Amino acid sequence: MSEVKDNKVVLYIAMSLDGYIALPDGSVDWLFDVKGDGGDNGYADFYATVGTLIMGRGTYDEVLKLSDEFPYAGKPCYVTTRTPSQYEKSPHVTFTDEKLTELVPRLKQQSSGNVWLVGGGQLVQDFMQEGLMEEAVIAVIPKVLGQGIPLFPAGTAPSSFELKRMEQRGDIAMLTYKVQR
Amino acid sequence: MSEVKDNKVVLYIAMSLDGYIALPDGSVDWLFDVKGDGGDNGYADFYATVGTLIMGRGTYDEVLKLSDEFPYAGKPCYVTTRTPSQYEKSPHVTFTDEKLTELVPRLKQQSSGNVWLVGGGQLVQDFMQEGLMEEAVIAVIPKVLGQGIPLFPAGTAPSSFELKRMEQRGDIAMLTYKVQR
Repeated sequence: MSEVKDNKVVLYIAMSLDGYIALPDGSVDWLFDVKGDGGDNGYADFYATVGTLIMGRGTYDEVLKLSDEFPYAGKPCYVTTRTPSQYEKSPHVTFTDEKLTELVPRLKQQSSGNVWLVGGGQLVQDFMQEGLMEEAVIAVIPKVLGQGIPLFPAGTAPSSFELKRMEQRGDIAMLTYKVQR
Repeated sequence: MSEVKDNKVVLYIAMSLDGYIALPDGSVDWLFDVKGDGGDNGYADFYATVGTLIMGRGTYDEVLKLSDEFPYAGKPCYVTTRTPSQYEKSPHVTFTDEKLTELVPRLKQQSSGNVWLVGGGQLVQDFMQEGLMEEAVIAVIPKVLGQGIPLFPAGTAPSSFELKRMEQRGDIAMLTYKVQR
């Protein structure tokens, strides 16, 4: 007997005031000296709702640089790439070039919690193009970078969201949106 | 006897989630079907604090398109342009090419309230470059436009803000920042 789960596909990401998720070289060091709430800015609570992760290959490369241990070990993690066969098997991630319109609904159904769309901008654009993103939690970092990799690259399909809630965590504005279809 | 006033230079502006203040042609129609607080989203309260306005020439052109009557009549309004002599005298605005570092401190001192930096992106960039912007109130509109005129154009001087407060007005997130020097 199959059960319809109420898992959601949720973008959860930090963005500068001028809309960038990383500097031009992909680095995210600028995130780490921001005054937050003194704790983890709600990350553990969010992560507890996550059953499955999906991210683009560029984001995966940056995640690997941030720490020696893979931070999402223990939850299924999918990395999208045009060339999955180029990657050695990893204990932590599955490389895939499956069509998002087939992959994402299946992950959503199989997942033991929400599907976290980690980024980056290109994958977000692909999700939005296919109507696969249901919620977006954007941590607005109070910095202007002046250059970088945009969360919503020019050419992203125009769309409207609903603001479900907002929270102040130190200097960070956490904005939670429902994506309208 | 001269008195030091506590007037501030405040950017007060609406921005899409992807960082645009207008569509590529300068139009701002997309602002008007957003669900706000059912009232004026705090505009009258803000406007009551304003003693003087300053805006770029492109923004001025868009303001003229929005209504038959100039909406800021009754408060001194300065329009920056490289070619002030090309404009006929107006009862409502002063066209100026004076250096911002001389103009803005004088306006601040003379003003009967805060100086509202209306926009657009180029003038904001100039103010930030000169350290003249003290506060920024950004109404984040829950739309992705996909293209447009950015609030913080690429090349804006990197800077950090402090989040003073945030308010939810319907689907609009009003974020008030203190600009750090």
